[in-house]
Amino acid sequence: MPQLRFDQTTGDWVVFAPLRKLRPHRNERFAPPSAESRAADRAICPFCPGNESLTPSEIFAVRGDGRSVSDWRVRVVPNKFPALMIEESPRRCDEGPLFWQMGGCGAHEVVVESPEHDRVLAQQSVDQITLVLETLQRRYRDLMGDRRFQSFTLFKNHGEGAGTSLQHPHWQIIATPVVPRQLRLKHAQATEYFDRTGDCLYRVLLDEELSCGLRVVAQSDAFAAFVPFAAHTPFETWIVPKGLKEPFHETPSRDLRALATMLQGVLRKLYSDLDNPDFNLAIDLPPRGDEDQSYFLWHLRIVPRLSTPAGFELGSGMSINTVLPEEAASFLRSGNGAS
Amino acid sequence: MPQLRFDQTTGDWVVFAPLRKLRPHRNERFAPPSAESRAADRAICPFCPGNESLTPSEIFAVRGDGRSVSDWRVRVVPNKFPALMIEESPRRCDEGPLFWQMGGCGAHEVVVESPEHDRVLAQQSVDQITLVLETLQRRYRDLMGDRRFQSFTLFKNHGEGAGTSLQHPHWQIIATPVVPRQLRLKHAQATEYFDRTGDCLYRVLLDEELSCGLRVVAQSDAFAAFVPFAAHTPFETWIVPKGLKEPFHETPSRDLRALATMLQGVLRKLYSDLDNPDFNLAIDLPPRGDEDQSYFLWHLRIVPRLSTPAGFELGSGMSINTVLPEEAASFLRSGNGAS
Repeated sequence: MPQLRFDQTTGDWVVFAPLRKLRPHRNERFAPPSAESRAADRAICPFCPGNESLTPSEIFAVRGDGRSVSDWRVRVVPNKFPALMIEESPRRCDEGPLFWQMGGCGAHEVVVESPEHDRVLAQQSVDQITLVLETLQRRYRDLMGDRRFQSFTLFKNHGEGAGTSLQHPHWQIIATPVVPRQLRLKHAQATEYFDRTGDCLYRVLLDEELSCGLRVVAQSDAFAAFVPFAAHTPFETWIVPKGLKEPFHETPSRDLRALATMLQGVLRKLYSDLDNPDFNLAIDLPPRGDEDQSYFLWHLRIVPRLSTPAGFELGSGMSINTVLPEEAASFLRSGNGAS
Repeated sequence: MPQLRFDQTTGDWVVFAPLRKLRPHRNERFAPPSAESRAADRAICPFCPGNESLTPSEIFAVRGDGRSVSDWRVRVVPNKFPALMIEESPRRCDEGPLFWQMGGCGAHEVVVESPEHDRVLAQQSVDQITLVLETLQRRYRDLMGDRRFQSFTLFKNHGEGAGTSLQHPHWQIIATPVVPRQLRLKHAQATEYFDRTGDCLYRVLLDEELSCGLRVVAQSDAFAAFVPFAAHTPFETWIVPKGLKEPFHETPSRDLRALATMLQGVLRKLYSDLDNPDFNLAIDLPPRGDEDQSYFLWHLRIVPRLSTPAGFELGSGMSINTVLPEEAASFLRSGNGAS
């Protein structure tokens, strides 16, 4: 059963999930799959239409007009190898004064992006990406109803180098019974800035990036995409709402569609200009209860996996970025990708 | 030229080192090298004896009796693709109120472990490992003399999955002109504990691990190796001094020899029980000026790269560990490795 333990030296809660050892992994890990293995993949892929019985019970689906169980456009199921489980209790069960631990209470859901096994997110239509974002929003809103959950991480892994174990494109949602230390730190930085200036740090950063312009990748009425001034990794790209007032769980559909359009544009640039890189993607949200606070602004972070963190990053916690954000943004603006 | 930029949202300084893009990388990245390519590797390996002219000017070497330039046992050279450079100034050159940056001042040295291209650290003698530790200590002591440097990271990458770009076994030292946020946080945790209890958090954790025993991997008079209660990754192992009073830069040679013995033992266990895994290794040191403070205890961390951090880790900063520390320690204790 999953549990959480507290690292006294750093202040981090660590998730222990022994079950996840059992996840499937492709053996020919770094070789491109043959046509035969792709067909075999699809036959046993638990996320493909027709294989619905291979997943735990469906949580939600956007269905077509037909009544077939396989006629869905987006489908949400519990992760079969969950990091945290709703059945667990968040009860503390410390082993002495320094060994703090608690039950692995939480939620771990999979949002299958589309019925198509081989179509990556960059190749999806704006309609389909909007459906995915609406589904993420709906599941986030529902999970907020469980008051044991303190924080929510909405994310996607693309490619094996980014930690994916199943090829069929999907997102994941993990709800944790603790506020991650990283979020506490971001909260402290942003509230300190708010107290000092009365402004939202993220909104001011966005304004500065837009007025400087050197690191902007794309813009629309509602959203801007840029490589942040102090990006931790090459081609890290943020998509930030420009004028929105609503927190993510209340963002209207028309704005989710505008986000889908921007996300599709940025992912297509990465796909074509960087040759379909592995990447992680996360929607950064405030801790529970702070959704309406004006110190924070939800946003989306795309982090291509173009470099390997090594001993310096482990030892110091600092990042080494080999590509200046101005170069990365300029490359993406002028590249041969769809714009 | 390298520079550092400040991430206002997290409080991290990020190193920008465009030069490091040019580092050599094996093209057949994940294929085992053939005998021919290994021989070719050695011919052009800048760390092999005879190729001394391929490195920047030597900083230090432990030499044999002979006077040949190639007769050395351990050799220290500047990193040819440095993350930070001693020639740079740590002068701040902010671009407006939120875009803080400074010159990429620092040091980045390579400690070549031995003349042997193909012998990994686990296969080295205790004598040779002691020489390496003495050399690291000597270089750390020397770099401490440059008061521009605020923090020192001593580390090693083993295997391409751990970020190594050159196969010939080596360590690295990076001195930074800032205290990394991670170190500030560890400092805050440890000083808060010290203020509250009068004890060193690390010493109490060590005592608790030893008296519990479930996670202990090996022990000698001077050192203990254990998998910490809240290890962030599978088989993360710490080596902590048991009775030492001296900070790392003043640790006597006989204790460095005891550390070498313990390190060799643990690395041999990992090598044989986990089939020579990629790993990172770091010596955790306090920030400049706190070397003699009793709130901290230097130690060595070995982190095998058995799992891939993905979108949840990116989004939340939390880790998911699939192997319980008790299981990992028990496996290493009872495994078929040298003990």
